[in-house]
Amino acid sequence: MPEPLALHITAEQLAAVKYDSNGLVPAIAQDITTRSVLMMAWMNADTLRATLAEGRMVYWSRSRQEVWRKGDTSGDRQFVREAYYDCDGDTLLFKVDQEGRGACHTGERSCFYRAFGEDE
Amino acid sequence: MPEPLALHITAEQLAAVKYDSNGLVPAIAQDITTRSVLMMAWMNADTLRATLAEGRMVYWSRSRQEVWRKGDTSGDRQFVREAYYDCDGDTLLFKVDQEGRGACHTGERSCFYRAFGEDE
Repeated sequence: MPEPLALHITAEQLAAVKYDSNGLVPAIAQDITTRSVLMMAWMNADTLRATLAEGRMVYWSRSRQEVWRKGDTSGDRQFVREAYYDCDGDTLLFKVDQEGRGACHTGERSCFYRAFGEDE
Repeated sequence: MPEPLALHITAEQLAAVKYDSNGLVPAIAQDITTRSVLMMAWMNADTLRATLAEGRMVYWSRSRQEVWRKGDTSGDRQFVREAYYDCDGDTLLFKVDQEGRGACHTGERSCFYRAFGEDE
């Protein structure tokens, strides 16, 4: 069973993150073992801080307009192992240990399970 | 030298893509060989069609408000090998052959070269 791992970040690093006009930043979750891209969702400043402090992915649900502690309902939590911000500071990348069956509410391991250029 | 590869997609697949209020959808580029996440940028419906037809990443630059045919200036093009859309249809993932030195304008191979939790 993976354990949460808090990341200690500097005030400068937190200040480097840029939020959009809704106060949100995109956060990509990548499986640290398989390197598969699992999902992309959004964080605000509070859920980013919660993610780093708790060592698990805490998103902001745009559809529900509420804190989305990934896995609290499904059991399929995402434990943070490494966290990156990009050159512009406007996108985040988290390498995670994905618990359970996977990241997607459909039961697929990755949300990106449908390919263009294939018959459905 | 990698060659462009056009992807044939169905009208249903194109219609499944959802754009935000600015007509944009986030597009993640992942190195198909190393599986490193290279960057995230944005596409509109026209540049998504161009990306699939030309077999190379064509973004919409939000800062310049213009079509951004990645690599036309730097020479570091991104050739599309596989393309996916997520369960909600509101994020795209492209597996690419990254040409040249990398994806980032800083000279780094990936735009996600700065980690939280490390001294800078």
